[in-house]
Amino acid sequence: MAIRVTVWGENVHERKNRIVAEIYPNGMHATIAEALDRDAGVTATTVTLQDPDHGLTPAKLAQTDVLIWWGHAAHGEVQDEIVDRVCDAVWSGMGIIFLHSAHFSKPFKRLMGSPCNLTWREAGERERLWLTSRNHPIAAGLPDSFELEHEEMYGEPFGVPEPMETVFVSWFQGGEVFRSGLTYRRGAGNVFYFRPGHETYPTYHDANIQRVILNAVKWAHNPAARIADPNAAPNVPVDQAPEKIQERGPRLHQAGEEGFR
Amino acid sequence: MAIRVTVWGENVHERKNRIVAEIYPNGMHATIAEALDRDAGVTATTVTLQDPDHGLTPAKLAQTDVLIWWGHAAHGEVQDEIVDRVCDAVWSGMGIIFLHSAHFSKPFKRLMGSPCNLTWREAGERERLWLTSRNHPIAAGLPDSFELEHEEMYGEPFGVPEPMETVFVSWFQGGEVFRSGLTYRRGAGNVFYFRPGHETYPTYHDANIQRVILNAVKWAHNPAARIADPNAAPNVPVDQAPEKIQERGPRLHQAGEEGFR
Amino acid sequence: MAIRVTVWGENVHERKNRIVAEIYPNGMHATIAEALDRDAGVTATTVTLQDPDHGLTPAKLAQTDVLIWWGHAAHGEVQDEIVDRVCDAVWSGMGIIFLHSAHFSKPFKRLMGSPCNLTWREAGERERLWLTSRNHPIAAGLPDSFELEHEEMYGEPFGVPEPMETVFVSWFQGGEVFRSGLTYRRGAGNVFYFRPGHETYPTYHDANIQRVILNAVKWAHNPAARIADPNAAPNVPVDQAPEKIQERGPRLHQAGEEGFR
Amino acid sequence: MAIRVTVWGENVHERKNRIVAEIYPNGMHATIAEALDRDAGVTATTVTLQDPDHGLTPAKLAQTDVLIWWGHAAHGEVQDEIVDRVCDAVWSGMGIIFLHSAHFSKPFKRLMGSPCNLTWREAGERERLWLTSRNHPIAAGLPDSFELEHEEMYGEPFGVPEPMETVFVSWFQGGEVFRSGLTYRRGAGNVFYFRPGHETYPTYHDANIQRVILNAVKWAHNPAARIADPNAAPNVPVDQAPEKIQERGPRLHQAGEEGFR
Repeated sequence: MAIRVTVWGENVHERKNRIVAEIYPNGMHATIAEALDRDAGVTATTVTLQDPDHGLTPAKLAQTDVLIWWGHAAHGEVQDEIVDRVCDAVWSGMGIIFLHSAHFSKPFKRLMGSPCNLTWREAGERERLWLTSRNHPIAAGLPDSFELEHEEMYGEPFGVPEPMETVFVSWFQGGEVFRSGLTYRRGAGNVFYFRPGHETYPTYHDANIQRVILNAVKWAHNPAARIADPNAAPNVPVDQAPEKIQERGPRLHQAGEEGFR
Repeated sequence: MAIRVTVWGENVHERKNRIVAEIYPNGMHATIAEALDRDAGVTATTVTLQDPDHGLTPAKLAQTDVLIWWGHAAHGEVQDEIVDRVCDAVWSGMGIIFLHSAHFSKPFKRLMGSPCNLTWREAGERERLWLTSRNHPIAAGLPDSFELEHEEMYGEPFGVPEPMETVFVSWFQGGEVFRSGLTYRRGAGNVFYFRPGHETYPTYHDANIQRVILNAVKWAHNPAARIADPNAAPNVPVDQAPEKIQERGPRLHQAGEEGFR
Repeated sequence: MAIRVTVWGENVHERKNRIVAEIYPNGMHATIAEALDRDAGVTATTVTLQDPDHGLTPAKLAQTDVLIWWGHAAHGEVQDEIVDRVCDAVWSGMGIIFLHSAHFSKPFKRLMGSPCNLTWREAGERERLWLTSRNHPIAAGLPDSFELEHEEMYGEPFGVPEPMETVFVSWFQGGEVFRSGLTYRRGAGNVFYFRPGHETYPTYHDANIQRVILNAVKWAHNPAARIADPNAAPNVPVDQAPEKIQERGPRLHQAGEEGFR
Repeated sequence: MAIRVTVWGENVHERKNRIVAEIYPNGMHATIAEALDRDAGVTATTVTLQDPDHGLTPAKLAQTDVLIWWGHAAHGEVQDEIVDRVCDAVWSGMGIIFLHSAHFSKPFKRLMGSPCNLTWREAGERERLWLTSRNHPIAAGLPDSFELEHEEMYGEPFGVPEPMETVFVSWFQGGEVFRSGLTYRRGAGNVFYFRPGHETYPTYHDANIQRVILNAVKWAHNPAARIADPNAAPNVPVDQAPEKIQERGPRLHQAGEEGFR
């Protein structure tokens, strides 16, 4: 069965900024989804900030194997309730890919537990991404390095936790470096951060970038059934302990009581 | 200079539950702080949930090298504003140690970005902690294993991110296991989770447990000056790029503008 | 195309020890391979220590997607040249799974760079394996815990590097714990260590154990083309630098010279 | 008590190459040791490849808290027996720092378990090192980035295991990047790899580089008593099991027998 991808687009600059609108006439999310949809193994749809529930209803998340998130100007408009819902879906097994300025999105910051800050410069300079981990599934089919002639610079230190793996590191013409492709696991969900994608440049039309995103979708997909309640903290009664034991000593909880939260 | 430790106590069951009050007549936080204070290299003070700002004013956090957190019954009463303040302090370099039921505290969940759930049983059973990393600084002076005759069981799967290091794993009489000592770094702050410490047992009077907490304080202490703003994401203007570049292509931001958040 | 698995068996105790021979009349490697071969996605063959080149000729390794290694009594008889060949294959992309007493095999020690030691007891006691990472691909289809009624005990501290992920932790009846399922990446090769499998017990006839090994084969398989020379350290001549630079300053090497090794 | 550092120098190019001899008239090891020795908390000595046992007798290693290794032209001349001895010392708690071309030294390859390869270019180009982890102890007192005007280029992919932490990433004028500062733990020993230091440039006279090495010495120092036998794999007899158990089922080993290796 095809991997069901939902591309979440903030869809603000595409409508307000002439330059962005010319590069992405149907929105960045549409360009990203169309590229994925050309792969036989993927079915991609799009939702935006402006949709009810930002397009992320419980039903939609339940039908999403991998969620892709691009946001920049309107991080603060994303409702906290939806952020909780997205994190729960990740913890129960949904994959998630954060692109570029989504480093400051609410769900990325929530999943990282860290500031997620960096330095930046919007000068249309050259970026060159290098693999650090040759033959990593996210790097499948890519050369050891590839270039984007015009990109925004993001510089270290990047305020994220040490990743499970560093897959790409970027070189910038102006002298900075950045860990551009990072993998994490949160609960049962696979998380990938991928740096490129400033909205005033045609980055998501680039074949190498499209390849990385497609590879990341396949890597992030967890085929296991979703965990019903990823936050459950069940009591194991004494008579159901794997080894026979006798209760002893004082206790706080009565039999059958819920734990504190 | 001595390491300044602040022990944060929820201080609820000590006042409401006779058993807990007998074991910890001045509160669990007091017992933990007194043990630390006996070390010449540490100065420990206590604050509680009931204090203004839960005792965690900006001034107090600025004077805290390592914060220790014990909470259980009243996680929900901790104000979100204080949680933000604590996380900012960690990201700027304050060490933090979470004890036992603090796995479900707001700051731990915020720093982990994961459900932090587990299974549990309150049966006064035997727990045996094993080192997985001999000679780790947090295990200094400890044997390869040590026992607590009566403890609450916490069982795997423990819903936390893969740690930087697993320092202890617990064996439980009833048949479960648990990763009991886990290290993380978040921003410039060192984070340690340590499992034992159910309030109806005299765990914090145990010499081995006191030793682990003291070791963890020394490990978590970052002597570097605190980062002034751990969330800063400064723009690097073109004329201050490390390498000389020319701005080119379209841009969103005007010179001197702040980035989006 | 099916994943090509080669099961390497030391094949010593199966021939010398009556108990082992009764449990594994065709050798442990045969039992492991037969279980894998029942899966439509896998084709499994076996080789043994006694074969020329221990069965691991360059041609055989080139046709092996995932190698499984079981050894115990004759680690020292494995030729260093074959160990080098196996490590090169791993670094170039072959997956490898080490079972039980292979913790002290030459290729495992070589790939870990650490002592790989542990404590042990042969008492036929009960082992219970717990998932620490629910929904991990290696845990697909397994319950949160499962038991082996008779196993050799391996105890912590286990002298291996901190893994990429801890997938299983074992509980032992005699009071010890052990990190039983650990993932690593070495070069382009995925590495999995899995603890159970003492030769005097019928462990590899157990359905859960067979499931873990099958899952691990699928996880370890890297479908990318093998790296031709995983040790290559190519010079990048000045005129082929990605950015135009001028050579300057003194140098050791003449143009076209190999680097030192 | 001061940290006892031993700087191991290959001491080949300093004697054979006029350029290197002018920059390091007493050898690179002497320059590195003199800089460390200026710190009140460190006592540094030097040994070289040409000394008996390459200067690394059991007595010398027993008195070494942190070993620093620089080699390039003569990796192959280091005896395997001494490599084993060094690895044993690391596993028992000695810290070790590998500099620059030591990425291909025998002890580094042995401790990493991976190819440790990279790309390179000797063009005297500019290198700029960026912190990825601000306030890491190894970065104490350093700015977010610093430059070396002339260095050899090392480029990704760098064939090492995913580190515990990536502390520095280098930018090169010619367009490459490299993970320049990496931490590992192997047994009880802390390991740091630090990239800069090509012998035809005055890198080890640079104040920032000296600061990093000093910081790394303090980070790598493990004050715990050395583990007597880091490879020991002791049997735990049934009657000494932490929990009372009865032996049952068949076994291979007789009471008191050594395990296989």
